Amino acid sequence: MKRRHIPPAKAWSGRFAKPTDEAVERFCSSLSFDQRLYEEDIEASIAHCRMLAKQKIISQREARQIIRGLNAIREEFRHATFVPLPTDEDIHMAVERRLYELAGPVAGKLHTARSRNDQIATDLRLFVRRHIAEVDRRLRTLQEALGAAALRELHTVAPGFTHLQPAQPILLSHHLLAYAAMLERDRSRLADQLPRVNVLPLGSGALAGTTFNIDRNYVAKLLKFSAISMNSLDAVSDRDFIVEFLAALALIGVHLSRFCEDLILWSSAQFSFVDLPEEFATGSSMMPQKKNPDVAELIRGKSGRLVANLVSLLVTLKGLPMSYNRDLQEDKEPLFDSVDAVESSLDVLARMVSKLRFNRERMREAATAGFTLATELADYLASKGIPFREAHEIVGRIVRYCVERKRRLEELSLAELRSFCSKFDESVRPWLDPLAAVARRQAPGGTSPENVKAQLRALKLSTRSVS
Amino acid sequence: MKRRHIPPAKAWSGRFAKPTDEAVERFCSSLSFDQRLYEEDIEASIAHCRMLAKQKIISQREARQIIRGLNAIREEFRHATFVPLPTDEDIHMAVERRLYELAGPVAGKLHTARSRNDQIATDLRLFVRRHIAEVDRRLRTLQEALGAAALRELHTVAPGFTHLQPAQPILLSHHLLAYAAMLERDRSRLADQLPRVNVLPLGSGALAGTTFNIDRNYVAKLLKFSAISMNSLDAVSDRDFIVEFLAALALIGVHLSRFCEDLILWSSAQFSFVDLPEEFATGSSMMPQKKNPDVAELIRGKSGRLVANLVSLLVTLKGLPMSYNRDLQEDKEPLFDSVDAVESSLDVLARMVSKLRFNRERMREAATAGFTLATELADYLASKGIPFREAHEIVGRIVRYCVERKRRLEELSLAELRSFCSKFDESVRPWLDPLAAVARRQAPGGTSPENVKAQLRALKLSTRSVS
Amino acid sequence: MKRRHIPPAKAWSGRFAKPTDEAVERFCSSLSFDQRLYEEDIEASIAHCRMLAKQKIISQREARQIIRGLNAIREEFRHATFVPLPTDEDIHMAVERRLYELAGPVAGKLHTARSRNDQIATDLRLFVRRHIAEVDRRLRTLQEALGAAALRELHTVAPGFTHLQPAQPILLSHHLLAYAAMLERDRSRLADQLPRVNVLPLGSGALAGTTFNIDRNYVAKLLKFSAISMNSLDAVSDRDFIVEFLAALALIGVHLSRFCEDLILWSSAQFSFVDLPEEFATGSSMMPQKKNPDVAELIRGKSGRLVANLVSLLVTLKGLPMSYNRDLQEDKEPLFDSVDAVESSLDVLARMVSKLRFNRERMREAATAGFTLATELADYLASKGIPFREAHEIVGRIVRYCVERKRRLEELSLAELRSFCSKFDESVRPWLDPLAAVARRQAPGGTSPENVKAQLRALKLSTRSVS
Amino acid sequence: MKRRHIPPAKAWSGRFAKPTDEAVERFCSSLSFDQRLYEEDIEASIAHCRMLAKQKIISQREARQIIRGLNAIREEFRHATFVPLPTDEDIHMAVERRLYELAGPVAGKLHTARSRNDQIATDLRLFVRRHIAEVDRRLRTLQEALGAAALRELHTVAPGFTHLQPAQPILLSHHLLAYAAMLERDRSRLADQLPRVNVLPLGSGALAGTTFNIDRNYVAKLLKFSAISMNSLDAVSDRDFIVEFLAALALIGVHLSRFCEDLILWSSAQFSFVDLPEEFATGSSMMPQKKNPDVAELIRGKSGRLVANLVSLLVTLKGLPMSYNRDLQEDKEPLFDSVDAVESSLDVLARMVSKLRFNRERMREAATAGFTLATELADYLASKGIPFREAHEIVGRIVRYCVERKRRLEELSLAELRSFCSKFDESVRPWLDPLAAVARRQAPGGTSPENVKAQLRALKLSTRSVS
Repeated sequence: MKRRHIPPAKAWSGRFAKPTDEAVERFCSSLSFDQRLYEEDIEASIAHCRMLAKQKIISQREARQIIRGLNAIREEFRHATFVPLPTDEDIHMAVERRLYELAGPVAGKLHTARSRNDQIATDLRLFVRRHIAEVDRRLRTLQEALGAAALRELHTVAPGFTHLQPAQPILLSHHLLAYAAMLERDRSRLADQLPRVNVLPLGSGALAGTTFNIDRNYVAKLLKFSAISMNSLDAVSDRDFIVEFLAALALIGVHLSRFCEDLILWSSAQFSFVDLPEEFATGSSMMPQKKNPDVAELIRGKSGRLVANLVSLLVTLKGLPMSYNRDLQEDKEPLFDSVDAVESSLDVLARMVSKLRFNRERMREAATAGFTLATELADYLASKGIPFREAHEIVGRIVRYCVERKRRLEELSLAELRSFCSKFDESVRPWLDPLAAVARRQAPGGTSPENVKAQLRALKLSTRSVS
Repeated sequence: MKRRHIPPAKAWSGRFAKPTDEAVERFCSSLSFDQRLYEEDIEASIAHCRMLAKQKIISQREARQIIRGLNAIREEFRHATFVPLPTDEDIHMAVERRLYELAGPVAGKLHTARSRNDQIATDLRLFVRRHIAEVDRRLRTLQEALGAAALRELHTVAPGFTHLQPAQPILLSHHLLAYAAMLERDRSRLADQLPRVNVLPLGSGALAGTTFNIDRNYVAKLLKFSAISMNSLDAVSDRDFIVEFLAALALIGVHLSRFCEDLILWSSAQFSFVDLPEEFATGSSMMPQKKNPDVAELIRGKSGRLVANLVSLLVTLKGLPMSYNRDLQEDKEPLFDSVDAVESSLDVLARMVSKLRFNRERMREAATAGFTLATELADYLASKGIPFREAHEIVGRIVRYCVERKRRLEELSLAELRSFCSKFDESVRPWLDPLAAVARRQAPGGTSPENVKAQLRALKLSTRSVS
Repeated sequence: MKRRHIPPAKAWSGRFAKPTDEAVERFCSSLSFDQRLYEEDIEASIAHCRMLAKQKIISQREARQIIRGLNAIREEFRHATFVPLPTDEDIHMAVERRLYELAGPVAGKLHTARSRNDQIATDLRLFVRRHIAEVDRRLRTLQEALGAAALRELHTVAPGFTHLQPAQPILLSHHLLAYAAMLERDRSRLADQLPRVNVLPLGSGALAGTTFNIDRNYVAKLLKFSAISMNSLDAVSDRDFIVEFLAALALIGVHLSRFCEDLILWSSAQFSFVDLPEEFATGSSMMPQKKNPDVAELIRGKSGRLVANLVSLLVTLKGLPMSYNRDLQEDKEPLFDSVDAVESSLDVLARMVSKLRFNRERMREAATAGFTLATELADYLASKGIPFREAHEIVGRIVRYCVERKRRLEELSLAELRSFCSKFDESVRPWLDPLAAVARRQAPGGTSPENVKAQLRALKLSTRSVS
Repeated sequence: MKRRHIPPAKAWSGRFAKPTDEAVERFCSSLSFDQRLYEEDIEASIAHCRMLAKQKIISQREARQIIRGLNAIREEFRHATFVPLPTDEDIHMAVERRLYELAGPVAGKLHTARSRNDQIATDLRLFVRRHIAEVDRRLRTLQEALGAAALRELHTVAPGFTHLQPAQPILLSHHLLAYAAMLERDRSRLADQLPRVNVLPLGSGALAGTTFNIDRNYVAKLLKFSAISMNSLDAVSDRDFIVEFLAALALIGVHLSRFCEDLILWSSAQFSFVDLPEEFATGSSMMPQKKNPDVAELIRGKSGRLVANLVSLLVTLKGLPMSYNRDLQEDKEPLFDSVDAVESSLDVLARMVSKLRFNRERMREAATAGFTLATELADYLASKGIPFREAHEIVGRIVRYCVERKRRLEELSLAELRSFCSKFDESVRPWLDPLAAVARRQAPGGTSPENVKAQLRALKLSTRSVS
């Protein structure tokens, strides 16, 4: 491993009379960002190498030499001792150049029966697969934090909003689990992508396949892909799996932006539904009293880049002729950026959720302010046989009566109610209790405690209180 | 059915002392576009009504009256005789208003135990489900057209491009099936969405569920949904299924833009690989000779709106607090627009593909121009034991030698080849035949005729020539 | 005008042996949306025709016949009596076909020295110019509504927020004028675009210019363009002026989304800073008490399509080769849609602003809640020579002291204050009055009443109270 | 300068009982990217400091100490010796922390009368202003390269395309200058933004202005701003100037994508209109013959991120309430990324354009292939008094006659021409010479050499040949 050979300066210098312009070299180089793929690149190279040996395209001895070199390079990357050169165009050439230095001319055999086009497609699929799992894990952690909070707040009555106006009393736990339900769809979406990600492009060559007697299924097995690509032209230019992943991440971003909007609202002085833990808030350099929901704001703000990274790749792909085009090099940075944004957001948000302290008293009060029990009255009348539309109209008039007199529905006497509709009798009283209103929503999906528990079970979240 | 009753002017007028400003009414009304949902709205109302009767929330007789009215309204829509009023806020209120006119006060009972919030969510899911099937059907038709063309061109050698530079000879059929492979992923993506679309939101009420003893699973069965939503807050504000559909349509749009780019290139005078059928081309008002690939250009251009409609909904959803907010009304037009753009594009493209006539002679010539057989030479040397990188370097020098002398690889004498590398011998000749080069790519996914046929089989496309 | 001649079925049928496929005809036709440009198209045609006559390319008599026909067609459009045919590809061909019917073969001379490529570019510029003026007018109307409201609330103290947390007391008028300042930039941006819009492309022909002795400057003068395009290839494919306009409209949309977010927050039960006029709110079909800020929500939601329409055109333009490509037909619908969304939003918002009633008492109370006067204390200490950072630190500790004891800054005794810093003396009292805090912000741009008035003057808005 | 003092760990630690969670600290920190603003941050701080001294808010001696420290810190940044700490939240706190270390407690006075909110807004405006100038300079350099190439190719006849179909002969120089015209609009757009960028926000405090007797106009003068912001709430949350800049950069990106599309097409084997200089092309790791237009492809691909960065900020801004929200921290990375992408693209493209060698012979041949002189014939007939539409129809039939017989227009005998229309006579011959066709397009903006020269003059580009 100590010998040093001089590898070709470029993988393709034979055909060229003039060296590449230096500024062009800088402009075209992707090493600064694609070196992040070193694990994937080396893993795929080792699998390729093992297959070449198995198929006797190279000898077992050559394969061992190459693999030893690749393992050494991986360690260099892991310990951040790998030294890139300005002439290393990308992660593939950087690894191969170093392999020449470490293993000598045998390094030149590794690239048999492959091209950087199928190589990078393979690396990216390994990367996406790894991060689908990672994002999924963090989605689950956030779900668990939401589930635990829902369990703590199982009976906390809160105002349910539509149009940010008080609508009906709900359970805080129901509200929290609405976000868990969104995340469940996100997870299901990621799971659905896997079979399309787990398709091995290696063996597609530059675009047309290869003349060597390779065993693609063996490589697929080594790399745990469930299928091999069936069209080489498509395989080297297909970035659908990144688009799909970026779309799923953008939607996660939108979900988180909605949840953070709620957290920002709830921690405002006017709502005061939640107290942000100090460790998750920051202050102001000018205003000494400030405790700002910066984490939630930043996560909300990151929805911008998540939507944008998806747009970025779609625009780059638009109108490209078959097959590989260099434009595709622009696929990596949006991918890396979205992965980082989502993973860090989920992480910090899950930890924050587990520390939220809700102001139950304040929520309870707000739950019945704003005539949120008006629907109960309408349902009450409908249950007495009045067409719902008519019942709605009657209760609308009762609300107007209260608004004008600054009174609450609960304060009206039976006589007053009966002046609007003779169907009212004493049985109406229990309809004006928010807890009862919540409990009455037994139809599946409604906000009753039973339904909340059913959701916890459906999401396989704990239903056992801890304290 | 002849009686006419005066229904409430608005579904919510009771609480209001002042009428809505007229400009506001116009601004807020969605009827001009959401009347497109009349089939779905009425279908869902009938199922809701049947359930109400089954649960004895309304009587069977009332249900019959209501359903008779709804059927009549559907016929009015189908025959374009429905007359909307300016005060009809949306498709739901338009239908209900008309139901009052046709069926009298019993109409007021239909809205028992539901809200427009869960109603529109249901309508949209029915709509998306229908168009997932429709788009899938058209994707399949285009695949079949591609498959038939691939079968016709099974042995047509064509230049394979990377970077729009001649790379290696391929089969035209392989190129055409690359697009079929993309469409196959599109179809698989749509199929994966279905379980998330097929979730019934009806019964979620405005946001909190309902107090009535409804049977949501019965409604789900009637409407062929495979599940019911489990969180009412989420159910009324969830538009993920539209985002997902718009993302899939955007990606289809990008695929079509790539295919159309190829068609536009190929029909250019410089390429002349294909002759656009006259019925699918248009001319110029100024230049009498023009035959323009307008269809392909328009489809390519429509990728803009398809990406944009996805962005539109993501932006609208960003940062919305729980639960329903009126912003969501903005979900429909991008959905309708993307559906129309994709369905019409697929339709016209499939018909065009079936009429394309390829200029085989010209493609064959182009297949070996530009030294596309250089990789064969490198593979040849690698098969003789020279490390691939070195072989590549040697052939690069041979290419430069040819470029400078304006000669083709096939024209070089063995002596000339041997002056670059002594490993060359007579056995090199067959490597310089494009058909052999294509046939040699036997590794699965490569461009050999066997692999092309394997693709046709994998895609369940016909492999039996017609003529 | 009564003669009827049979014009060529298509402007370009000579070269074609087969008729266009009907589905293709439908797919390619733009008449359904571009007939909206009939005023512009006819105006430009008349100017072109007058120039042709002036240059003696056609006779004065021919010009009169043509112009008479065009005027008649315009009337048909204005009275909605124009009958389009399925074979009318676009507004240009529809008009010309009708001109043949009305004026006979002389109609064929109108298209001398022009192409639909330079024609549509001209129509679109006239359209954009008209709507820049229209949008500007509506921006101004909204500014005036904001100015009038600011004048009414000149001395209303309100809480100023950062991070949606109470920060410092401000004047409500200052807050309202922040939006007027945004709109002022929007107006300035529109004004800057005009010179780039006001460039005449007519005379560029299909792409190369024309061989006829035309006078482009004369047409420019007739159509009130300030310059003529200098490169014909660029002129027929330039849609920058639409991109710029769509970008300006998207930014207006974002501004309005922010203002509407404030309105939605303020009209929430928790904030209750404003009472939405009933005429500008809507109710719920299920919850009888609801009064929803739908108008504000819809405007906020429309930011989605405004951003999207910009994206749509950018994507469509991406990667198009020189010069005109049919993809450009996709430029119109996003343009029309953004214009409609912005104009209607501005209109309804201006009317709503003029009817807003602010809950001054509630705002005043909120203005000092949440320790918003803490910065005053820090400034007070800094004015006594303590480095600001240190002053900030001291006041931070005072705030924590109050939080823990549930007290307000104003309630602390001098002794208590002095226990944190000996620089406190009686002179601190006036610093804890919100009105004084507001008035003290005299530096230009600050929230003092003088500065608010200065803004009204700078924006040329009335400073004279009405009542 | 050697003294070391312990500054407060955070600018806002006084109010907090618990330290920030470490993961939150990392998540919220912007130093990794905003340290790029160090020049701007220090420049603005020095100006602020000088103003504080001038206004006697701090002493001249204190100002000198502070400025000496700031200069030292700037040198540390310039020499990359500045050592950031994990607790440095952002560039402002990093600088201030270091200032404490270097200058002692006087450092605490620098933040008097300002907030990080107005500080970052100022830094960003300085940054945008600098890069508007930088981008403009590079646009100009590319224009000059285009101008020089146009001068070299002043008389090269080339095919003009619409729909990528041969349309009419044009001059290559005219084609090149079409791109110069686009860039001219880009430059004009940037120039228009400057007055909106050159507005000083410093002095707006956190949101409400300041109580100190500052002189904002003096700071504006020092920093060369032409105006001061007039509303403090708006000033701290206004990012319009970044949106505008990103929109201009996105449009530049689209222009470059179109130019690069042409270069990629032209360097394809099928077109062969241009030979890419080897220094600006790269090869393949698999195919030894490849010479790929990577630079052009990468630039075309970068349109994706340029559109996306604009979307990113628009999405982030959407729906934010007044005034500063932490979401705004997400404004920087898209800005930096777009600036880098555009500046490097312009740079490398200008150098490439200056080395392009066009294949004049091949362009000349292509210029008349595909019946590009058909419009000449139609114009000829129109000049003989036949209505243009009719002339168009006649020539269309002539073209069809040629297509069917595989002949060129130039080859037809006069008798053949007269069999289509008796107006043809000997005078038609000169109309079928491409150079004459080009020269005949004298109307301003057309492709004649005179018009090309007029464009060079209008763009103030050299019209003097060099060689």
